Amino acid sequence: MADVKLFGLWASPFVRRVQMALQLKGVDYEYIEEDMNNKSELLLKYNPVHKKVPVLVHNGKPVAESLVVLEYIDETWKNNPILPEDPYERSRARFWAKFIDEKCNPALWQTVWAKEEEREEAIKEACQNLKTLERELKGKKFFGGDSIGLVDLTANFIGYWFGVIEEASGMKLVTKDKFPDLCNWIDQYVSCNIVKQNLPPKDKMIESFHTRISTGSWK
Amino acid sequence: MADVKLFGLWASPFVRRVQMALQLKGVDYEYIEEDMNNKSELLLKYNPVHKKVPVLVHNGKPVAESLVVLEYIDETWKNNPILPEDPYERSRARFWAKFIDEKCNPALWQTVWAKEEEREEAIKEACQNLKTLERELKGKKFFGGDSIGLVDLTANFIGYWFGVIEEASGMKLVTKDKFPDLCNWIDQYVSCNIVKQNLPPKDKMIESFHTRISTGSWK
Repeated sequence: MADVKLFGLWASPFVRRVQMALQLKGVDYEYIEEDMNNKSELLLKYNPVHKKVPVLVHNGKPVAESLVVLEYIDETWKNNPILPEDPYERSRARFWAKFIDEKCNPALWQTVWAKEEEREEAIKEACQNLKTLERELKGKKFFGGDSIGLVDLTANFIGYWFGVIEEASGMKLVTKDKFPDLCNWIDQYVSCNIVKQNLPPKDKMIESFHTRISTGSWK
Repeated sequence: MADVKLFGLWASPFVRRVQMALQLKGVDYEYIEEDMNNKSELLLKYNPVHKKVPVLVHNGKPVAESLVVLEYIDETWKNNPILPEDPYERSRARFWAKFIDEKCNPALWQTVWAKEEEREEAIKEACQNLKTLERELKGKKFFGGDSIGLVDLTANFIGYWFGVIEEASGMKLVTKDKFPDLCNWIDQYVSCNIVKQNLPPKDKMIESFHTRISTGSWK
């Protein structure tokens, strides 16, 4: 049997993407929770460049960076593909995954953590990015079509984490009247077994969010 | 014959990566130079999200974002592979390409364009990133091993552009005593046919650099 280990952090959407993908493929693995305030020697050995989770270790070889890990998983375990087969469709999936990671998620994050005077601009930018995703979803159940794929896994912050942050902060950006297709996607998304079985508990996230608000750091 | 068009900008390392890859594969294509101060309707149609070059249009279908384009090219034209075959080696190549685009290049850029009071920190960060690349190159001719691959194409800013900027600005970071393997790689890199035939002329780049210094914008 393959020796698969995952170094993670319970609240990290980047780690949870990988857990969802491993479950989709039916890969058994050992999960190791990291303390980011006191990183293990193994984490520093396996990801000396970024010193971050997730790190997937397969037969002793480490793979870091969640999008890189997702592609690795898809190329290693071929069942239940995460990426489409056609090169053009694959390029579309990679384009949107990159857009979510580099544009959409940082903008959403800024709506919560930007300085007061920069918040309005942050909200405007986040909404523009969400509109772009809304257009991409038009007429589709998932970004991947009828089933979950790379883009859906990558969009998990929008699918769950941001909603919890909205609830905890009292702000509401992603509404059914503004983003009907995205809201529909969120409903479908969190109903999928591989997604819902790999989401952090809402209560614990809200508690963690309030700790960050009051202390300036995550617990 | 396949209908291949590339929307580009002569000075862009992102565009030149794609040109190098197309030449490596022996793909004929039509090149369309964009004016970024007056973007064409076709560019806005083909890349409505980012409105940037490069955009590769293959049989009428657009692919944007240079790393996504490189993977598309490698999956579409199978000769002279850009990525290795083995999934783990592929993950390593993607990891380093991402590191260069997200960490190394922005840090190098900052050494030139950061405000005076932030420059020292920028230089420190850039040198740390270059040291990381130096370690990765140890004992290898190219990042891809004996021949040029995804990481080498992605590192073209370090392989050529940054040297020209150093010359134009009078700053010198990448020296043989500090980065012997990287300097050796640069020498090998710019000697490769597919690289040297796709580099922008140094004189024109230096002129463009000085225009930016004096006017605040590229010409």
